[in-house]
Amino acid sequence: MDKLNLSKHISSSFNEEIDQVRNQVMAMGGLLEQQLRHALQAISSADTELAQQVIATDLAVNNWELTIDKTCTEIIVRRQPAASDLRLIMAIIKAIADLERIGDEIRRIARAALEQFDSHQQGLLVNLDNMGRHVGQMLHDVLDAFARMDVEMALQVHKEDKKVDVEYEAITRQLMTYMAEQPKSIPLVMNVLWSARSLERIGDRCKNLAEYVIFFVKGKVVRHSSDAQLEQEARS
Amino acid sequence: MDKLNLSKHISSSFNEEIDQVRNQVMAMGGLLEQQLRHALQAISSADTELAQQVIATDLAVNNWELTIDKTCTEIIVRRQPAASDLRLIMAIIKAIADLERIGDEIRRIARAALEQFDSHQQGLLVNLDNMGRHVGQMLHDVLDAFARMDVEMALQVHKEDKKVDVEYEAITRQLMTYMAEQPKSIPLVMNVLWSARSLERIGDRCKNLAEYVIFFVKGKVVRHSSDAQLEQEARS
Repeated sequence: MDKLNLSKHISSSFNEEIDQVRNQVMAMGGLLEQQLRHALQAISSADTELAQQVIATDLAVNNWELTIDKTCTEIIVRRQPAASDLRLIMAIIKAIADLERIGDEIRRIARAALEQFDSHQQGLLVNLDNMGRHVGQMLHDVLDAFARMDVEMALQVHKEDKKVDVEYEAITRQLMTYMAEQPKSIPLVMNVLWSARSLERIGDRCKNLAEYVIFFVKGKVVRHSSDAQLEQEARS
Repeated sequence: MDKLNLSKHISSSFNEEIDQVRNQVMAMGGLLEQQLRHALQAISSADTELAQQVIATDLAVNNWELTIDKTCTEIIVRRQPAASDLRLIMAIIKAIADLERIGDEIRRIARAALEQFDSHQQGLLVNLDNMGRHVGQMLHDVLDAFARMDVEMALQVHKEDKKVDVEYEAITRQLMTYMAEQPKSIPLVMNVLWSARSLERIGDRCKNLAEYVIFFVKGKVVRHSSDAQLEQEARS
């Protein structure tokens, strides 16, 4: 076996390992998409059993983080990857920390679904549901962007977060007005408000994930850049 | 120069690099302690100028994260550290992500300090200030634990988070009662509530940092362990 073949062999087996860890990230992401769908369904249909199930499944999300973390560390030790390979592994290590925190926020939403809302209060949940779908789409899109390392799609998700923030402001205003009119409802409505806050945080995390995609592809850290800077850097 | 000396030389220069990055983490942590103190001072003394200063200084916190991230990646590429050295660098990479998010929460508290509270509402801020001092102490202690890689101190901080959660619950109840009595105050009081939530999240992050210390020293991932498990694993 000559040197070239050997290096090809090493490199192809390295690629397999990288593919494996990418598949693990996708599996973790898919589980989170399902968790978010179930949490929203539980809150809008007052399904406490489903809410309990979401809370219990968060353990599986946490386990994914530990597994992927371990795989990444092993790859670094065994392969001593340089430059772009290391950048991918770093992007994955950061991504799974955000995915795990997305799981925490979903668990918080599921907890709110354990409360009993009356028919009028149910009306307040409609906007929350819409915001939830919007954030769910962001999560789906950013996972797609991650799977294909698609910078354009990552930029799209990054912009979408602004719209989620606007939705969140609107819901907050609506809920505060309701609380002022129905002071007795405050503790219950606070749960809806916390859930909206959790959705807003999930949107933030999706934005982080989009930044890791750009970091990997462009080799530039774009966190803390302004939006205009970000677009320029990502497309340059 | 014989082989042994060479390896000694490499290793001592590696230690210098590690020391450098540890000093950077301490500098970032020290800046955050100061930021938290200033944010709490701004909110309790209605000092909008100080609040603006805290918001502006968050940029310096973000820059620390980028600098330390870069230093860590360079060390991995150049040194190809194995086992415990890599574990330290991984702990640092995770720690600075949490420190940066602590900076975000402090910025949120400083934003609340831009609001004008009347003398009665000022009374609501006393408990917030107490909770803030408590969380500030946790931050200080966990940075100490990180500097000395002190597992016992990390365990202490980890336990302290439970007490902060209890304080947070008490403040939330108090504020909800106030809102129910004074519905017009809701938008203003919500700012205090968000600030309490931010402090609670900072406590969570300090708990994460404590877990990284245990992860480094013990080589065990203790995230997602129960408290009893954690103590057993950390002390074994």
